[in-house]
Amino acid sequence: MQVEGLSINLATIREQCGFGQAVDLCLKHGITRIAPWREQVAKVGLAEAVRIVKSNGLKLTGLCRGGFFPAENEAGWQRNLDDNRRAIDEAAALGADCLVLVVGGLPGSSKDIGAARQMVSDGIAAVSPHAEAAGMPLAIEPLHPMYAADRACVNTLAHALDMCEQLGENVGVAIDVYHVWWDPDLANQIARAGQMKRIFAHHICDWLVPTKDMLTDRGMMGDGVIDLKGIRRMIEKAGFLGAQEVEIFSAENWWKRPADEVIATCVERYHSCCQA
Amino acid sequence: MQVEGLSINLATIREQCGFGQAVDLCLKHGITRIAPWREQVAKVGLAEAVRIVKSNGLKLTGLCRGGFFPAENEAGWQRNLDDNRRAIDEAAALGADCLVLVVGGLPGSSKDIGAARQMVSDGIAAVSPHAEAAGMPLAIEPLHPMYAADRACVNTLAHALDMCEQLGENVGVAIDVYHVWWDPDLANQIARAGQMKRIFAHHICDWLVPTKDMLTDRGMMGDGVIDLKGIRRMIEKAGFLGAQEVEIFSAENWWKRPADEVIATCVERYHSCCQA
Repeated sequence: MQVEGLSINLATIREQCGFGQAVDLCLKHGITRIAPWREQVAKVGLAEAVRIVKSNGLKLTGLCRGGFFPAENEAGWQRNLDDNRRAIDEAAALGADCLVLVVGGLPGSSKDIGAARQMVSDGIAAVSPHAEAAGMPLAIEPLHPMYAADRACVNTLAHALDMCEQLGENVGVAIDVYHVWWDPDLANQIARAGQMKRIFAHHICDWLVPTKDMLTDRGMMGDGVIDLKGIRRMIEKAGFLGAQEVEIFSAENWWKRPADEVIATCVERYHSCCQA
Repeated sequence: MQVEGLSINLATIREQCGFGQAVDLCLKHGITRIAPWREQVAKVGLAEAVRIVKSNGLKLTGLCRGGFFPAENEAGWQRNLDDNRRAIDEAAALGADCLVLVVGGLPGSSKDIGAARQMVSDGIAAVSPHAEAAGMPLAIEPLHPMYAADRACVNTLAHALDMCEQLGENVGVAIDVYHVWWDPDLANQIARAGQMKRIFAHHICDWLVPTKDMLTDRGMMGDGVIDLKGIRRMIEKAGFLGAQEVEIFSAENWWKRPADEVIATCVERYHSCCQA
């Protein structure tokens, strides 16, 4: 039986499965939407990954990830832009709905977050013609403020949408509940994103209390405090009816369990905790 | 030699010193402004703490802390309000500039952050007459979004100021750089706070990269990525010229060093990294 509306970000079972195994497992559970990471694709090779995707009728809700624009010097800057252009090409080859951008933090020993943010905007602008030519939408993923220094200096949906307004219609947002659930302006900004037609992806997991690690202690849907149904209602009301993509980094729990159990739990919790 | 403009939040040396020792150490380093926690005051007794403060000509830049308003039921709610009234009385007895409010997170198993935020607003409104009668300003401290679930559901300066507007002139904000440095709207909101005359305190430390613990891995000023001078300039421009209060929770570093070294380092870094 197909599970409509559910996608699995393959980072969720990255410690247990390679690309091929992960796909087989998703298919076994009726899931035909996935979102791989570039490292996972690289391991089997892009051509083989494309073959697996096409031959199984899979659809990618996104490719993770481009971004990391800010650089300390001109050489680094050009390397970052080149890498983003390659990511765009890979996403296009795989037929992904979008390339997810984790935009990057402060370069080197910089304390100037305003300058880093400008580099992000300039970087996206620089690769946008390439993305448009490839027909590949770019999805800025605002990351939780706790990642502002080292992963992404775009930390609110409002800020991401301000950038989208300047960058044109091919640049939108990936809304990951983990990063934005706390935002007092969330409902307004989701509605605004809908009016702008810029919601390109919806990622889910849960915020655990306590959270024991800033990076690898995300929770399974239902095990934390996020109002997943409520946020999904906002997103659907804003016009995005695409799949919800489960992305769980969990070093001490889900990455240690059999992948089959993880995916079965994702399906079960999707049905019980996530639908609007 | 007196160090004008510097205050020490006594949590910074809480593992090494009791109240009396901490005060002696601050005085030795020329610091006459402190901010104790209620537990530290309770250990020596309020009357003795008041005696130490008055006899040494100390000034409190704040008492930590009131808050934690959201409750699961009516009995818990009343307990929380009573505790806040006691905190107000203690702050008044000590002659503190303000009572700092860490407002609390989601009560029980709630996933309704909007409801929690309403309880915070209602709670502050409920204790405000007591605070006004005591002449004790209440300072909402917006906490970093990573604490939204379990410590404080007010996570941006904008949100705190929206609450202040509803709650009257006796309710303002404590701006802690650790919690707000990432905010793309920071400059605007500090200016707004100044126009509202609601900046009651300015706390400093630094954001380390990487941050190894969400609660107890704060950095000494200068060891992280926060533009401390830049934020101080914004705050002074907004009209607040009060002391900068050092508040560092550091289980693996500063709490393990001799308190004398910690305070000496605070003074040195205050001079080299913090002044506008």
